[in-house]
Amino acid sequence: MDAEEFRKRGKEMVDYIADYLSSIEKRRPLPDVEPGYIEELVRNEAPVEPDSWEDLMKDIEPIIMKGTTHWHNPNFHAYFPTGNSFPSNLGDMLSAALGCVGFTWASSPSCTELEVVVMNWLGKMLSLPPEFLFSPKGDGGGVILSSASEVTLTCLLAARAKFIRQIKGNNPNMQDGVIISKLISYTSDQAHSSVEKASLLGAVNMRILESDNTGAFRGDTLMKAIKADKAKGLVPFFVCATLGTTGCCAFDKLNELGPICEREGIWLHIDASYAGSSFICPEFRPLLDGVEYATSFNFSPHKWLQVNYDCSTVWVKDSRLLSKAFVVDPLFLKHEHEGFMPDYRHWHIPLGRRFRSLKIWFVLRLFGQKKLQELILKDVNLAKEFEKLVRADDRFEVTSEVTMGLVCFRFKGTNEKNEKLLKLINDDGRIHIVPATMKGTYYLRFVICAATTSIDHVVYAWNVIQEVVKNITTCDIQ
Amino acid sequence: MDAEEFRKRGKEMVDYIADYLSSIEKRRPLPDVEPGYIEELVRNEAPVEPDSWEDLMKDIEPIIMKGTTHWHNPNFHAYFPTGNSFPSNLGDMLSAALGCVGFTWASSPSCTELEVVVMNWLGKMLSLPPEFLFSPKGDGGGVILSSASEVTLTCLLAARAKFIRQIKGNNPNMQDGVIISKLISYTSDQAHSSVEKASLLGAVNMRILESDNTGAFRGDTLMKAIKADKAKGLVPFFVCATLGTTGCCAFDKLNELGPICEREGIWLHIDASYAGSSFICPEFRPLLDGVEYATSFNFSPHKWLQVNYDCSTVWVKDSRLLSKAFVVDPLFLKHEHEGFMPDYRHWHIPLGRRFRSLKIWFVLRLFGQKKLQELILKDVNLAKEFEKLVRADDRFEVTSEVTMGLVCFRFKGTNEKNEKLLKLINDDGRIHIVPATMKGTYYLRFVICAATTSIDHVVYAWNVIQEVVKNITTCDIQ
Repeated sequence: MDAEEFRKRGKEMVDYIADYLSSIEKRRPLPDVEPGYIEELVRNEAPVEPDSWEDLMKDIEPIIMKGTTHWHNPNFHAYFPTGNSFPSNLGDMLSAALGCVGFTWASSPSCTELEVVVMNWLGKMLSLPPEFLFSPKGDGGGVILSSASEVTLTCLLAARAKFIRQIKGNNPNMQDGVIISKLISYTSDQAHSSVEKASLLGAVNMRILESDNTGAFRGDTLMKAIKADKAKGLVPFFVCATLGTTGCCAFDKLNELGPICEREGIWLHIDASYAGSSFICPEFRPLLDGVEYATSFNFSPHKWLQVNYDCSTVWVKDSRLLSKAFVVDPLFLKHEHEGFMPDYRHWHIPLGRRFRSLKIWFVLRLFGQKKLQELILKDVNLAKEFEKLVRADDRFEVTSEVTMGLVCFRFKGTNEKNEKLLKLINDDGRIHIVPATMKGTYYLRFVICAATTSIDHVVYAWNVIQEVVKNITTCDIQ
Repeated sequence: MDAEEFRKRGKEMVDYIADYLSSIEKRRPLPDVEPGYIEELVRNEAPVEPDSWEDLMKDIEPIIMKGTTHWHNPNFHAYFPTGNSFPSNLGDMLSAALGCVGFTWASSPSCTELEVVVMNWLGKMLSLPPEFLFSPKGDGGGVILSSASEVTLTCLLAARAKFIRQIKGNNPNMQDGVIISKLISYTSDQAHSSVEKASLLGAVNMRILESDNTGAFRGDTLMKAIKADKAKGLVPFFVCATLGTTGCCAFDKLNELGPICEREGIWLHIDASYAGSSFICPEFRPLLDGVEYATSFNFSPHKWLQVNYDCSTVWVKDSRLLSKAFVVDPLFLKHEHEGFMPDYRHWHIPLGRRFRSLKIWFVLRLFGQKKLQELILKDVNLAKEFEKLVRADDRFEVTSEVTMGLVCFRFKGTNEKNEKLLKLINDDGRIHIVPATMKGTYYLRFVICAATTSIDHVVYAWNVIQEVVKNITTCDIQ
């Protein structure tokens, strides 16, 4: 395909995308296929001679769309949102076409420098303490990674490296593995599964502590665990607190956890993957109070800030904590401008990196801060509308406070009834939601996901649930 | 921006991209900017009210392009290639627009299923042993990750988990950290820096063994190290062999290393990130002989198979080795179809994943296998043409055998002279190359990178080098 054919096909693809996204509501959010559906639809081997563009495009609907979960259907209410906006897509098109791999400053200066710019822009939008921002005076700054999972692992590994260095300072002959076996990290039972996975991959012990009745991780719980572990000779080194947990959007108590971590010299990492976007609104910024205690702070613009997956951002007050953990430096990557701008390859696990700051830049400039705030507020208000509908029906209960775009609710009765209800809602196919449990109680999570979800879709979803409940209350759910 | 405006702006972006890529030769491959160049060109904060599309696009040339390294300029000969083709870009546009996060089969069945299809297609194109492919009878299969760095770390962590399980079987009270301190891994001094980084992040010891005179990692070197380490009570668990090293494109001796790993029960990982694409050509497939000994095999279609970054593929004979290392399983991700198709979230570090198989599918279908083979052969032949030019000039020497698209060469004389030569070539700005060292000898790496590089560009590059040498031989290089 040459540039002239690309002009033609690219424009056809733009139209296909515009058509797809503007008519997405006609599709089932969750497709009706069985595992292995694709096998009979595709060849066993790649073609030797090229297929035509027409042949390929003819296959998109029956092969790809047939089995696609439509995350941007306004009736999709599962997981947490993932961003998808036209400005973000346009920025990503340009990024793909530039196709530079920005592992050092020299390998594409704009890739590093625009990332520094947008990380400071975002940091200011969240009113992060200035120590987290790039400035000629400090060592702070931010970097774009793929996902909150990757961020948590990255920070845990950097914290581990810091403590290995510290302990080796006094015990130079102690082996790294032996030091690691003495380290202990903490999170709550409401933290995302990726936090536990990070400890597994980091080969460090992690204590998963009980959250309070609202799902929040409390200071006294942490302090008790630290005392017990220190008495056993263990070294507390890492705490992961969550602002906006996946299960019920609880907010861990930073103002309790923070001073403890500071006193004990523990790396405090904040995972605000979903809720973090809301802190651009003055109404929600108080939820971030206590961030000044954090060593590292993460949220994912790809969740709720109109940026396409993947794009998760993390800030640290002292970037040397990252680079000391990740630096390996061969000649072919050295360049004469080292030192002034960050060489981001030392900030994370991979070497290569895409030009992801472009899509953030497109989003921030083409939406503007005010519109991005309005979109967050719209979603929170819609969640509160759904909450009202649930509360108005005696058969249902709301199980957690509604702060962001998530409503946790359940049919009053056993877990089994709610499992049945969930299955019927998803089998019905008009909307899609997923469940969670807290303290043994199973409930349904209704999330405002698509940017286009409106009050009509909220009412529609509630009507679907009412219909499904009607059908089952007359048979086996009672 | 609504769908109608996107139609307009998307088409403008398609034209911008077509113009950019078809006139890229007019730009300097390496931009002429100093670190921090962007600061005075951008605002300190994101705009509150949106900027117009025109304002944004007006900034692309003076802010972004001004500091971009043009990897797809046919005069760019640095690092290794990274793919960028129109079919790949079109597949990626669709992937971004779908915007689904395929962490489970249910979160978007097409995302998992198409990945299974293209991983088998690619595996067959490389004639991988059938145990590496998905089949109803076996546990083999492949998965797309971001980069070879991520793949190496993933496989090293899975190997570590396997050995921890094994050793714990006999010593249930031994702590993981203590076991880890007894594990030892091996690679050669020509392996990519990410291999050493993987051992750092995995907190395991790694012995970096000396390669032979051609840069290859040999069996007797490995065997000697294993014997010595076992005598010290260490447990050899992981070997990373490279096919096509970064420095000089050496091929480690799989047929020597493989039987040793098999006999000793060591996980053999093969990193063929760059050269792997060439194995689709029957001429080069013999270089992969011995892959049957590998536990895991990796190459990066985003390097030399016309697929845009990021897209690195890895196959294992036993996927349970991955899933046992990476499984953490919360309720909100469970679905009723588990077990039949892979839940890729258990195969790697991150939870979320983009629909990257689409761009592979677009590339394989719109190029066809034959054309992809031709493009590999074109690059190898161009490298051989460059080699001839170097060999015809007595002042220069070729320092390694030319097998793929890389020519390692140097000006006969001191390292300092060659450092000076490199700096002058890159300051001149018409072409861009980077250096490497082997056994203390500094040399220049000339790589065929862009898909559009032709014999004219090879001759042009050599002429530039001749001119630069002429200028300096008359002054200070002698």
